Amino acid sequence: MSTIAAPSNPESNPRVAAVFADIRTTRRTDFINAFWHYLAFDPALLERTWNEVKNVMIAPSTLDPLTKELIYIAVSITNSGSYCVHSHTAAARAKGMTAAQHAELLSIVALAAKTNQLVTGLQVPVDPAFDAGRTS
Amino acid sequence: MSTIAAPSNPESNPRVAAVFADIRTTRRTDFINAFWHYLAFDPALLERTWNEVKNVMIAPSTLDPLTKELIYIAVSITNSGSYCVHSHTAAARAKGMTAAQHAELLSIVALAAKTNQLVTGLQVPVDPAFDAGRTS
Amino acid sequence: MSTIAAPSNPESNPRVAAVFADIRTTRRTDFINAFWHYLAFDPALLERTWNEVKNVMIAPSTLDPLTKELIYIAVSITNSGSYCVHSHTAAARAKGMTAAQHAELLSIVALAAKTNQLVTGLQVPVDPAFDAGRTS
Amino acid sequence: MSTIAAPSNPESNPRVAAVFADIRTTRRTDFINAFWHYLAFDPALLERTWNEVKNVMIAPSTLDPLTKELIYIAVSITNSGSYCVHSHTAAARAKGMTAAQHAELLSIVALAAKTNQLVTGLQVPVDPAFDAGRTS
Amino acid sequence: MSTIAAPSNPESNPRVAAVFADIRTTRRTDFINAFWHYLAFDPALLERTWNEVKNVMIAPSTLDPLTKELIYIAVSITNSGSYCVHSHTAAARAKGMTAAQHAELLSIVALAAKTNQLVTGLQVPVDPAFDAGRTS
Amino acid sequence: MSTIAAPSNPESNPRVAAVFADIRTTRRTDFINAFWHYLAFDPALLERTWNEVKNVMIAPSTLDPLTKELIYIAVSITNSGSYCVHSHTAAARAKGMTAAQHAELLSIVALAAKTNQLVTGLQVPVDPAFDAGRTS
Repeated sequence: MSTIAAPSNPESNPRVAAVFADIRTTRRTDFINAFWHYLAFDPALLERTWNEVKNVMIAPSTLDPLTKELIYIAVSITNSGSYCVHSHTAAARAKGMTAAQHAELLSIVALAAKTNQLVTGLQVPVDPAFDAGRTS
Repeated sequence: MSTIAAPSNPESNPRVAAVFADIRTTRRTDFINAFWHYLAFDPALLERTWNEVKNVMIAPSTLDPLTKELIYIAVSITNSGSYCVHSHTAAARAKGMTAAQHAELLSIVALAAKTNQLVTGLQVPVDPAFDAGRTS
Repeated sequence: MSTIAAPSNPESNPRVAAVFADIRTTRRTDFINAFWHYLAFDPALLERTWNEVKNVMIAPSTLDPLTKELIYIAVSITNSGSYCVHSHTAAARAKGMTAAQHAELLSIVALAAKTNQLVTGLQVPVDPAFDAGRTS
Repeated sequence: MSTIAAPSNPESNPRVAAVFADIRTTRRTDFINAFWHYLAFDPALLERTWNEVKNVMIAPSTLDPLTKELIYIAVSITNSGSYCVHSHTAAARAKGMTAAQHAELLSIVALAAKTNQLVTGLQVPVDPAFDAGRTS
Repeated sequence: MSTIAAPSNPESNPRVAAVFADIRTTRRTDFINAFWHYLAFDPALLERTWNEVKNVMIAPSTLDPLTKELIYIAVSITNSGSYCVHSHTAAARAKGMTAAQHAELLSIVALAAKTNQLVTGLQVPVDPAFDAGRTS
Repeated sequence: MSTIAAPSNPESNPRVAAVFADIRTTRRTDFINAFWHYLAFDPALLERTWNEVKNVMIAPSTLDPLTKELIYIAVSITNSGSYCVHSHTAAARAKGMTAAQHAELLSIVALAAKTNQLVTGLQVPVDPAFDAGRTS
């Protein structure tokens, strides 16, 4: 079930076709997952979203590709974002995540949520030592 | 403001004193941040929490220490866990996080939240290709 | 799957029957969606919930009906409230939401979540100019 | 800081005065906490909110008053609802919550968030044995 | 669908077998729900999680078993943690939760989320009277 | 307190200066709120974020400017995004939001969170009538 009907022939729209072609080239696969098929209902939204994903997740950067996927999964789990948990866990595994690393990711994600609850429950004031801000 | 009064002399309790001593030794610093001072109101909860943090975040593992902090921050931001955002950003910086890496972390965390919203808004069905489950 | 069994013949209870009749009259349709069937397990909860929905979402007000649905969807997406995303997207479409407006709603909802993450990650202090409060 | 100015003399409005009087009588105290002062900017919203709080939290019911406060705190912690964490922790303490019970509440709230993360990360399918639903 | 394949014969691992045996003994049932089957992919994570659940939820304590389940459900609903909502609602019912108590739980959980939104929307400052903190 | 030090002289960087100039021109005010000062620590992130805000929130569109702010506030409240609640409530007021509309916004945001909790607690299955998806 979904809240829109994914376009039945999305690549008949040249803007969609261009994005899908770029996804295939960039990822070196013919597989276009459902997220992009659904976003194709609005070509401008599709273009902006793909450009941001490509820029943030795929362009060379200061964090390695697997670390970036682990961060993405951490946010998606915390947001109960089932689709992204599935897609980025698959992506992390494709980038070499081992079962031990997966278990460790889950242990950290679970611990962080746990301590978030504890500090919120206690309303612990932030230590002045953690303040990095000296604004202009 | 907080929901409990932190114990005024927590190390008069030997269980608390033992945990605080272990924190100082393990982290090689005399600084005990407020989280532990507040948790000291219940020595058993303090012990369990510290043991888990030590086990998950500090013991040798398959993920490097900085990556673990980045994952922790990602969850804490998503949970609006202000205290943990502060404390683990400080920890990440102490472990070498550069300003460029910090900006990249924030870019990923923001993008993930954004695409979580898009897939939830569209209720995109999960691609069968992402299913790793073949249960016993 | 659900955590309770929806009553098999809810309108045999006169309080449920009265609410269902009011839903049909107010919405000018015979369709009673599953939410109300399940709430019928507790007639008092059903009555209070329907009265609040009717009062907030249906009674004449300072915001137009479509805007109200868009706000409802925005909250439901952010809460990962799958059922309400479905039901209120359907309601918004019935009230005239176009595909372009739907795409725009999703763009705003995604952007807001993104900037929420950025300010939480940076712990940006609130500008004094935004303070509207001068309490008694 | 707040997003509205709380009314400087809220009880000059008779609807607000009636609600405040009922709060004082019901709670047997002259103290009206800030939440109600701010809600007074819209007397109808104030009335509806107070009526619901009174009906759900104060009227005789199948759950005892302290248990109800503990549930309220659990939700508020999970929502990072700082104000309600403060106000309902104070209320729970006034209703007899001991330090040991507070620690236990926090342990459960933290554990639940932790296992929520684990099942979401693993996307564990729900056991058919848990399905209570046999709809009409 | 799930992000890992649950081990097909988990009890061939002696650490998993020991945990499963303890679950059966402690809960007095042969039924091991899916959560534990999936966690078995990492025996150390399984052991730590079961030990914490046993310690927090099952060991004798200052809160009665049903109250503990209600708190667990409250967090899980707020986190949209579907699996835990199912499993702990079933557990609460097994511990005697009546339909009236279930309806009351849902009323409180819903009201708390509502007032969390109101105070966040208004950014109500916390009353000094609620401050319990006088730190060392 | 914040997790970074905002640049003390951000406009000495020409990329930051260009964004700040565009903010002033677009919004017809000299006031640059703190969010942009902090984002200036990474000029690329600042540029991308401002471009998206300008594109989504300010460019002519199918939703009117006030409706867009109300949606933004709804997400920010639900995410406990205190900064954005403040800044976008101020923006909505500047675009004409009345006190009555503000109260109505809060009523909807609160009701949506409440019904999100109810459907999650009951795990109500989505009505087939709400399915808009017929994918290619």
